[in-house]
Amino acid sequence: MVKALSVNQLAWEKAKEFIDKPELYGVTVSKSTAGATIVDAGVKAQGGIQAGKKLTELCLGGVGKARLGFKTYGNLTFPSITVSSDHPAVAMLGSQFAGWRIKDGDQIAIGSGPVRALALKPKDVFEEIGYRDQSDKAVITLESNTLPSDALIDKVTTASGVSASNLIVVVAPTASIAGLTQVAGRVVEVGIHKLRTLGLNPNLIRYAMGYAPIPPVGTDFEVAMARTNDAILYGGTVYLTVDYDDEDALQGIINHAPSMASKDYGKPFLQIFREADKDFYKIDHGLFAPALLMINNAKTGKTFKAGQINPNVLMQALGF
Amino acid sequence: MVKALSVNQLAWEKAKEFIDKPELYGVTVSKSTAGATIVDAGVKAQGGIQAGKKLTELCLGGVGKARLGFKTYGNLTFPSITVSSDHPAVAMLGSQFAGWRIKDGDQIAIGSGPVRALALKPKDVFEEIGYRDQSDKAVITLESNTLPSDALIDKVTTASGVSASNLIVVVAPTASIAGLTQVAGRVVEVGIHKLRTLGLNPNLIRYAMGYAPIPPVGTDFEVAMARTNDAILYGGTVYLTVDYDDEDALQGIINHAPSMASKDYGKPFLQIFREADKDFYKIDHGLFAPALLMINNAKTGKTFKAGQINPNVLMQALGF
Amino acid sequence: MVKALSVNQLAWEKAKEFIDKPELYGVTVSKSTAGATIVDAGVKAQGGIQAGKKLTELCLGGVGKARLGFKTYGNLTFPSITVSSDHPAVAMLGSQFAGWRIKDGDQIAIGSGPVRALALKPKDVFEEIGYRDQSDKAVITLESNTLPSDALIDKVTTASGVSASNLIVVVAPTASIAGLTQVAGRVVEVGIHKLRTLGLNPNLIRYAMGYAPIPPVGTDFEVAMARTNDAILYGGTVYLTVDYDDEDALQGIINHAPSMASKDYGKPFLQIFREADKDFYKIDHGLFAPALLMINNAKTGKTFKAGQINPNVLMQALGF
Repeated sequence: MVKALSVNQLAWEKAKEFIDKPELYGVTVSKSTAGATIVDAGVKAQGGIQAGKKLTELCLGGVGKARLGFKTYGNLTFPSITVSSDHPAVAMLGSQFAGWRIKDGDQIAIGSGPVRALALKPKDVFEEIGYRDQSDKAVITLESNTLPSDALIDKVTTASGVSASNLIVVVAPTASIAGLTQVAGRVVEVGIHKLRTLGLNPNLIRYAMGYAPIPPVGTDFEVAMARTNDAILYGGTVYLTVDYDDEDALQGIINHAPSMASKDYGKPFLQIFREADKDFYKIDHGLFAPALLMINNAKTGKTFKAGQINPNVLMQALGF
Repeated sequence: MVKALSVNQLAWEKAKEFIDKPELYGVTVSKSTAGATIVDAGVKAQGGIQAGKKLTELCLGGVGKARLGFKTYGNLTFPSITVSSDHPAVAMLGSQFAGWRIKDGDQIAIGSGPVRALALKPKDVFEEIGYRDQSDKAVITLESNTLPSDALIDKVTTASGVSASNLIVVVAPTASIAGLTQVAGRVVEVGIHKLRTLGLNPNLIRYAMGYAPIPPVGTDFEVAMARTNDAILYGGTVYLTVDYDDEDALQGIINHAPSMASKDYGKPFLQIFREADKDFYKIDHGLFAPALLMINNAKTGKTFKAGQINPNVLMQALGF
Repeated sequence: MVKALSVNQLAWEKAKEFIDKPELYGVTVSKSTAGATIVDAGVKAQGGIQAGKKLTELCLGGVGKARLGFKTYGNLTFPSITVSSDHPAVAMLGSQFAGWRIKDGDQIAIGSGPVRALALKPKDVFEEIGYRDQSDKAVITLESNTLPSDALIDKVTTASGVSASNLIVVVAPTASIAGLTQVAGRVVEVGIHKLRTLGLNPNLIRYAMGYAPIPPVGTDFEVAMARTNDAILYGGTVYLTVDYDDEDALQGIINHAPSMASKDYGKPFLQIFREADKDFYKIDHGLFAPALLMINNAKTGKTFKAGQINPNVLMQALGF
């Protein structure tokens, strides 16, 4: 559909700023044995919220924007990230989606970012959105507590067909400032995923914008993971423009789309997770959705709204 | 006054990004027979909200900024455009104002943007603001459903004195995403026009900033036009700093400035328009104004406020 | 700590935009007798809010961001500046802090900006934050009603060790648009100073973000100075992430941190100042603090909140 748009080329341009000004972003840059460039944005490095903003834009393959600022949730005003794209299927599904599980010895690393559009991981997503990138350079983003091993780098270059010297890997743990920022920046992606499971074709989304609070730092992985979910489930707002012929069907989809449509809605995610014995499969998957969705149907000019921000649970979840 | 400021040179720099990255902006770039560069941002091309942002900054002659984000109107949070300029008379009247009616065969195209400051259309505006540009390059923006004819290009180059190869034409229909964005981005211009009709000298405005919601897409021209009016009449906020000696006179002007000072205020514009038999001349021209104005008088340090956001009419108008 | 980060080199890059596009920013550029570049952003020049934004980013030594937009304070929405930094001690104390009193004949000029990190003024601040810059170029910002004398330039080059031709001086009076913008942009710095006096080590602050309204123009120095204080005391919001082991001590500090913890809180600053016979030493120094603070402890994941926005005093203070 947007074949000439190269998510890897666009992300590469942005990633170079990490390499040019590592001290400004609080990152450290090193080379893997094979010559890949590794940007540590929070494993041993301090990282920062600007690193998190750039990491989000890399995840979006350079075809989306991220912005930082304060936003209001009930009586609370809180640092937040706003993301948008005129190419939502490519940006959010073809690049940002954390859809590549890469075995790395005993561990599994979760890869996201534009490299996926070269390696076509997972293949069905790229078939669905009708997009693949062609680029001799690639950028991968890893949500991980460790820097990538040589074996992992090797898997990435093999699957993507780029040489190691043309690969940039950016790593940040979930619980780091940059990590929390980029996960909150997945608010629109989470909305699009939920809508897909309800039957909405992501290729019909023409424009997408959303925002969520950036959770405070200072917790272990589990609490950090829980808070990024809360940021979206209780504080996330998503606005989409779609081309939809069957408006009754669209309305049905929207009504089930926000997090409050789930039976598990209403408590901080950490509590839900622990009550489910930390087993994601025991949690209703319909819960993973933004708090508030607005969908403008470009076929009729109508706008539908479902869900609402929940400042009370959000305050609890953010550790006030 | 600001003679060294070339709105065409500044806009040309920004317009080049459309030409460098057409896929990213969803635009298509072509050449006219005479060699002018035509950027389609919504006629046949998809366009997008980033294209609308850039189109707005081109309209402002590069001497104003446009920003996208969510803004709150009552209980509603909605995608919005914020515009600002430190040169309001030049940016809003000398460039953005859609003040050049260009006959194109049977049709009339409405031209705006920096080219007007070369062609001096209309002349009285440029006499009033004491500004004209000198530039061998020009940028014109057209709010239109069709791409410009060779005859229209010829009229533009003749009137502005630039060669066709040094002309960039950017076109977007009112009802397109880019078009709706750039028309909402006229919120400050609308405020300045209303204030002029009430007697305020635009050269006394030192700084201007405002924002309005970006109407949802999906309607024909008439509904789109109505909604862009509603975005400003019921959702537009404008802040100005002026140098005004007669503060009593200023207060009188401000009280009549917001849309609610008009007898036609209070209903979605489409209804007003249809009740007036679709005849603009039957509608009170005082209606065309932002919902809320704040004016800071730099001669005294006082700030005056008039009008208010009307979230109820806005919700109706935006198609909820 | 962040030794490779050169606040002067980063600010120099940004300052060059003033020199490249003076008309756009409303500034005038001249040379001192010794060859220093002087940027007038409000003494005789008009300046503007974009000049104020850039001035703020220069003050922050290029390691912080400033953004302009509307923000809401109670029922009021008002032009505001948001600042942030991933290097708060360096940006706010090592650069932005107006900590260099330079004798200039009979007068005392107040210098701020990155040059301080070369001249080490005042020395104890740089010892405390463990930072000094190494750069052959320097940028100084002056809050002043007059352009700098040759004698002052000479003192700056001598103390900083740069040649005059490698020095950029940016000047704006407090009461100018650019000046009001950059002083409102000190909201986070004011918060950090208050916290220091309460015992918080600024090197433990990992991230800082805040915003405040930009006061209307049109007053003399005294009223302008009072309003910039009000913007912070009654309208300023600051969010910090800190690494703090003793959380009980942290909570005690935070409770005393907002302006409302002061006995002098509650009236427009001009009234407080006049009731104190215009003697700053008669005013409780604990008053100089943001209205609202949120502090996230990165050691525990908790977030503390103290104070609140005071829209009533703010409206009065801003001249409504």
